[in-house]
Amino acid sequence: MVDTMTIVGVGLIGGSFSLGLKDRGLVRHVIGVSDTKASLEKALELGLIDEALPLEEAVRRSQLIYVAIPVDVTVPVVRQIMDLIGPSQIVADAGSTKLALCESLASHPLRSRFVATHPMWGTEYSGPEAAVHGAFAGRSCVICSKEDSAPDAVALLESLYTALGMNMVYMDANSHDMHAAYISHISHITSFALANTVLEKEKEDSAIFELAGGGFESTVRLAKSNPSMWLPIFQQNKEHVLDVLNEHIAQLRKFKSCLEKENYAYLRELMESANKIKRIIR
Amino acid sequence: MVDTMTIVGVGLIGGSFSLGLKDRGLVRHVIGVSDTKASLEKALELGLIDEALPLEEAVRRSQLIYVAIPVDVTVPVVRQIMDLIGPSQIVADAGSTKLALCESLASHPLRSRFVATHPMWGTEYSGPEAAVHGAFAGRSCVICSKEDSAPDAVALLESLYTALGMNMVYMDANSHDMHAAYISHISHITSFALANTVLEKEKEDSAIFELAGGGFESTVRLAKSNPSMWLPIFQQNKEHVLDVLNEHIAQLRKFKSCLEKENYAYLRELMESANKIKRIIR
Repeated sequence: MVDTMTIVGVGLIGGSFSLGLKDRGLVRHVIGVSDTKASLEKALELGLIDEALPLEEAVRRSQLIYVAIPVDVTVPVVRQIMDLIGPSQIVADAGSTKLALCESLASHPLRSRFVATHPMWGTEYSGPEAAVHGAFAGRSCVICSKEDSAPDAVALLESLYTALGMNMVYMDANSHDMHAAYISHISHITSFALANTVLEKEKEDSAIFELAGGGFESTVRLAKSNPSMWLPIFQQNKEHVLDVLNEHIAQLRKFKSCLEKENYAYLRELMESANKIKRIIR
Repeated sequence: MVDTMTIVGVGLIGGSFSLGLKDRGLVRHVIGVSDTKASLEKALELGLIDEALPLEEAVRRSQLIYVAIPVDVTVPVVRQIMDLIGPSQIVADAGSTKLALCESLASHPLRSRFVATHPMWGTEYSGPEAAVHGAFAGRSCVICSKEDSAPDAVALLESLYTALGMNMVYMDANSHDMHAAYISHISHITSFALANTVLEKEKEDSAIFELAGGGFESTVRLAKSNPSMWLPIFQQNKEHVLDVLNEHIAQLRKFKSCLEKENYAYLRELMESANKIKRIIR
């Protein structure tokens, strides 16, 4: 049970985290911090937070400070918070990249009060209105470089995420960023690119509007995601994202080559090989 | 109301079509035709069909013959059926490509008894067990080259699909195949290729198993689709699929180039442009 928690960023992740903990009676009082006044008002109205305060005052009053903002601003904001806290307070972030942040905090005297977390949950929507009850359940949450955090700090975050129904996974920050590139960041790039492919065509013909549905919707829905959140992720995770993007383009070229050469036996092999994804998603 | 209907192919589409019509009392008796004895037994057990018969006998007894099998076998099987029917019977197919089939029937003396349809609904599953109640609703159904079919034949198919909740769309077979490449076939290729991208990596590390979820699942679920259904679609629609695949690879290269050159202003533009897909899917 947390008495007072601050969420920095009152959007999809911070808001859903707050709702989940409130629903389970795991937090008494939630303070919201945001640069955007309209977001704070909406977060208050929706019950994501109980109070809105400036960062310094919010941090002073909180046992746990949970940072869920775009990863480019996460780095300076977490550093700023780390300079404000005392040795019994706990800071955690929820960002989709981990190496840049962990490196930036490596030599901070209170590093052990920080826990690097990534709850692997999200939707293509953002802002306070996107926060939902029941988020995170059934998904994995990564904690990076657990050994750099104090046991009580790790234990608190583990207990909160576990209460929300998450499965805990542990790895170093660089491994996290590599895996995140493969199973999350590339999905967003392919969706963005597929949307642009179709929109390029759609200029010429509006029939696509009438026909879109099902499989198309499934593969392209991530293209609705917020560029202000995703651009910094791609920037910070550039090397891993480029690795997987190159591999993905190479895989697409195999399909192209099979079609061009009418090598349908190999095309079938490629599809049968892809079917093995059933081992991972059911 | 159809008295007796034959479905050729007792899988996802044929089975769901039968269930939908039975649920609404729009067909009295459904005969199933399949080369696979186990599928017929399963279809009988699941109530998708009332009786299993060889093709010739089934056709002779049916007012409507509905063909829902892979598009490569659709062409010869529909031709065979067309040679068996009389001038009051109606034949329709549900295939994902239309030009090859329509061309092959162009000079058939009973061409007007055939209606080329494509209900734009499906899942990544196949076989009788994949058939579901409530399929098709809220999606579009394309009828190709309506002017080549008799008004009573078109009217019957329109009334059945409309009763299932579909929105009718009309276009020529070549336009259909082009649009289908853009809003359906490419989604499958990107999913197959993305699955192979990840599985290639996963050989080296099993952490992906634990982390996969959400956005990944959404973009990759079509990779579970049946190669025996999709290979003939890609074959028949080769030119259009190559067009869109080339465009998609070009779009992915733009993302790659932005990352390599750290041209983040243009990367943001690409993502903002992709966000316009919200106009098409909500």
